[in-house]
Amino acid sequence: MKKISGGVCAAKGFKANGVHCGIRKNKDKLDLALITCDTPCAAAGVYTKNKVKGAPLTVTKTNISDGIAQAVICNSGNANTCNADGIEKAQMMCDLVQKHTSIKASDVIVASTGVIGEVLNMQPISDGMQGLVNGLSTDGSPNAAKAIMTTDRVMKEIAYSFELDGKECHIGGIAKGSGMINPNMATLLCFVTTDVNISSEMLDLALGKVVKDTLNMVCIDGDTSTNDMLTILSSSLAGNEKITDKGKGFNEFCKCLKKILTYLAKEIAKDGEGATKLLECKVVKAKNIKSAKSIAQSVISSSLVKAAMFASDANWGRILCAIGYTDEKFDVSKIDVDLKSRVGMIRVCENGAGVPFDESVATKILSEDEVSIIVTCNCGGAKATAWGCDLTYEYVRINADYRT
Amino acid sequence: MKKISGGVCAAKGFKANGVHCGIRKNKDKLDLALITCDTPCAAAGVYTKNKVKGAPLTVTKTNISDGIAQAVICNSGNANTCNADGIEKAQMMCDLVQKHTSIKASDVIVASTGVIGEVLNMQPISDGMQGLVNGLSTDGSPNAAKAIMTTDRVMKEIAYSFELDGKECHIGGIAKGSGMINPNMATLLCFVTTDVNISSEMLDLALGKVVKDTLNMVCIDGDTSTNDMLTILSSSLAGNEKITDKGKGFNEFCKCLKKILTYLAKEIAKDGEGATKLLECKVVKAKNIKSAKSIAQSVISSSLVKAAMFASDANWGRILCAIGYTDEKFDVSKIDVDLKSRVGMIRVCENGAGVPFDESVATKILSEDEVSIIVTCNCGGAKATAWGCDLTYEYVRINADYRT
Repeated sequence: MKKISGGVCAAKGFKANGVHCGIRKNKDKLDLALITCDTPCAAAGVYTKNKVKGAPLTVTKTNISDGIAQAVICNSGNANTCNADGIEKAQMMCDLVQKHTSIKASDVIVASTGVIGEVLNMQPISDGMQGLVNGLSTDGSPNAAKAIMTTDRVMKEIAYSFELDGKECHIGGIAKGSGMINPNMATLLCFVTTDVNISSEMLDLALGKVVKDTLNMVCIDGDTSTNDMLTILSSSLAGNEKITDKGKGFNEFCKCLKKILTYLAKEIAKDGEGATKLLECKVVKAKNIKSAKSIAQSVISSSLVKAAMFASDANWGRILCAIGYTDEKFDVSKIDVDLKSRVGMIRVCENGAGVPFDESVATKILSEDEVSIIVTCNCGGAKATAWGCDLTYEYVRINADYRT
Repeated sequence: MKKISGGVCAAKGFKANGVHCGIRKNKDKLDLALITCDTPCAAAGVYTKNKVKGAPLTVTKTNISDGIAQAVICNSGNANTCNADGIEKAQMMCDLVQKHTSIKASDVIVASTGVIGEVLNMQPISDGMQGLVNGLSTDGSPNAAKAIMTTDRVMKEIAYSFELDGKECHIGGIAKGSGMINPNMATLLCFVTTDVNISSEMLDLALGKVVKDTLNMVCIDGDTSTNDMLTILSSSLAGNEKITDKGKGFNEFCKCLKKILTYLAKEIAKDGEGATKLLECKVVKAKNIKSAKSIAQSVISSSLVKAAMFASDANWGRILCAIGYTDEKFDVSKIDVDLKSRVGMIRVCENGAGVPFDESVATKILSEDEVSIIVTCNCGGAKATAWGCDLTYEYVRINADYRT
């Protein structure tokens, strides 16, 4: 498996672009993204579990229900959610893709992100479409990645290649994150493309399997968005023998997909609203996977742990506290906690109680921009990892200012 | 029912005091509280549901298991939690009460609040006990209320009188809140005293019934503490006919207890770490109570709603979003949202979609220090209220600085 450039255009058959069409007031911010494929693709998606769903999700679910799609259109700046005319507008976005390309409206994945409850102005989208389509290219992934950003500070893009049946295959993805991000969801906005020859059923299975350990293990603020969506399109142009069951090919594909989605999950966590550092909570020797996941998510979601990490303060009592309010069964008196970063590792809690440690060493470890909290349950063999970020003044500033 | 002064000393038979004994470094901060009664009391308690429990809770549960107690001792500055010698130290605190008063160690309720995982130094407590006991008086409630505070900015104290069988009865309470506060718990630290003649069984029943709609509906930060505890002591000196069943007397008692705990719940929410305003979410016309409570708690707990309220920003989309990620069943297209404060009320969402409203009026309403979010579900007759506060820079500062 090899990291390559190209993002969502790394796989054969895909082009992308992103433009500023005018939904967002700031002219420097791109706000409309398009990804297209030369051929109809096998397609699969997972969606927010929030009961208040963005209109684009409803339209996308319908369009993708036959397992086929050929394009993704996505705007930022307006979520097109909680609007009486939301579905109509989302449908219009698909129609615009059809009008300006040879792709059928019913093969378009449509997504929106931004403010909830403001009527989406179609004029800028309609006006911007020709330019958006004209600019489609195999170099367009960065622009598409930029156009789906909201409060994100960096664009998130990745691609890997790997071999199947002697053929070079590719998977690439772009994502946006930042706020309204919580594990109790399908995911945030993430678009993945591949040229692996795979049935839409197996694509669906792979996505469901991999998302559980990657994007669903990210928590920024506990707010599950109304518009989260992760879709994957496969052009099937790599030339490998078609994957139709859970054999070796499927496993290889899942392995690479996991690499892609893990990278994007960590990038999203690191770029959480106001974050100064990436937090990782690794739970090991847990009773079972469910328990390991639940504990990892609880620690990574705790406002108090997050605030302590912002201050590089080894306040491990808050970690124990967050473990304690999960629904899981464990023996508190067996729990060990270590803090780790690239400069070292330190044990702060053993058998559920504090151990003497050098505060200055702990502070040095926690001052790095990527920090791991390792929770050893000593009651089984299961493990899980969750990702998040610290809680900072900046999170409050961003979210106090966002709409007005 | 009449609001009166006296706090936990309003009821007949009770004395209280609070001193600075030296657990906390700042000499201006009281850190050791004692409440005693002239007679053994009927007693009941509810405790945190966090699986990591403070050692004092274990000792208190044992001491209160016979339904009798006569004193409360509580220190701030150290939670006496996650320490190998925690139970031993908590027991020593009870022994110290016995040593300096005529009250049996096994009739003492012991509580601690503060940093988790630091060994409790008994010396200051032992040294401070005689002064603490010497200062016990019927005017001592404010000092006791101050001595249990951690990051609280104001002390929380209340008392009411009411009549039963022609006898004047009293209930009073003190509480501390601020951080690590979440509805999924018994409660924070709250000590209630009364002189109502009531069996410990009915006291237990009343406490369980009333806490559900009061302290358990407060959410500051989603972190359920390891040390939360609410206890009630009854001296039975009011002279009313003993309450032994769910008759009129019991109902009157519950009504007054609800008044006390509602007041303390709101005070705790208003004084949430870093809060600039009290938020209240009233859910009405919900399918059932469970659904109403769950929606109210979800809205009041949302970081994004809380940050918007800090900015007095009528970002109702975030309210809908928070309603949407509850597990409850409702029809989004029937939900109305109003924002209200003492200066007025404004509708911002009707039938699940935005309605035009005057932003300047909304900002004026939200700029008050007590704000209500009213969610009308239009799918039943149940209602519930939850209390919380806004999310501010100050919350982050307090929690980043707390330990170091």
